[in-house]
Amino acid sequence: MPASLGLEARATDDDHQSLKLWLRMMACTNQVQAELRRQLRQQFGITLARFDYMAQLHRYPEGLSMRLLGQYLMVTGGNVTGLTNELVKEGWVERLADPEDRRSVKVRLTQVGVQTFEQIATVHEAWVVSMFSGLRVQDRKLMIDLLGSLRQQVAASTSDHIELGHG
Amino acid sequence: MPASLGLEARATDDDHQSLKLWLRMMACTNQVQAELRRQLRQQFGITLARFDYMAQLHRYPEGLSMRLLGQYLMVTGGNVTGLTNELVKEGWVERLADPEDRRSVKVRLTQVGVQTFEQIATVHEAWVVSMFSGLRVQDRKLMIDLLGSLRQQVAASTSDHIELGHG
Repeated sequence: MPASLGLEARATDDDHQSLKLWLRMMACTNQVQAELRRQLRQQFGITLARFDYMAQLHRYPEGLSMRLLGQYLMVTGGNVTGLTNELVKEGWVERLADPEDRRSVKVRLTQVGVQTFEQIATVHEAWVVSMFSGLRVQDRKLMIDLLGSLRQQVAASTSDHIELGHG
Repeated sequence: MPASLGLEARATDDDHQSLKLWLRMMACTNQVQAELRRQLRQQFGITLARFDYMAQLHRYPEGLSMRLLGQYLMVTGGNVTGLTNELVKEGWVERLADPEDRRSVKVRLTQVGVQTFEQIATVHEAWVVSMFSGLRVQDRKLMIDLLGSLRQQVAASTSDHIELGHG
């Protein structure tokens, strides 16, 4: 049994459908992420955490506060301060003083950073397209919609808890 | 915009369907994981990494080598040696000498560890059932199948790469 199937094998009974789905989602996400991590390292010598950091910043040409950037990162283990120092050193990221809030440090991609990211992102997307190419277009569409419903439901239940916690 | 929607917002164009699906899968997984992490901490004072560790061990009543256990963990940041020390201290895990390989340390849940895990796992599953309850049974079934296809395709492409790398 491949190691990556480990946790998922916990739920085999049809009675545990939701748990089975959750474990499979997690296993699938880990598996795709591991493959992207491997390819990014091998072909571009870049970590997934750095790629994720640059992907977030790329959406904000005017720059983004480090606090918000930290919230947007999707890859765990991404230490914003550490990553910022590394990427500034590479010449891909620069720190900006925020005129509206001196205490808030903003960061943005340099011109070289934008070019570097865009080159890597194009290849990254081709890997994703290849990995998902076994699913039919309508199945991908359906999964996007179903995951969207799931996100909304989880978000709603989470904000309930936050209100309860604060109230 | 909620912070957790950050990365996902990168792909909005219909032309980027696979990337959009991948970003949504990752966002969804992160979101469910964050909620489970929060609830485990709040209601049981246990980290998600510890829960994941115990869930894996629970499948092996005879114990499991720490090397394999490390491969089975699904939650990143789970340091096997550190987690083992912590859980041995709690009295939930014990180390075993492996008679077949003196160099390989096996670990297994203690009787108290099994009872503790099973109590938490029951409640954990109820949270998962609740979070996924907005999806219809047939949609959950479909997602399980589609994610299964995806896993197989990614696994196949990964072993191609490994063969190339070693050949």
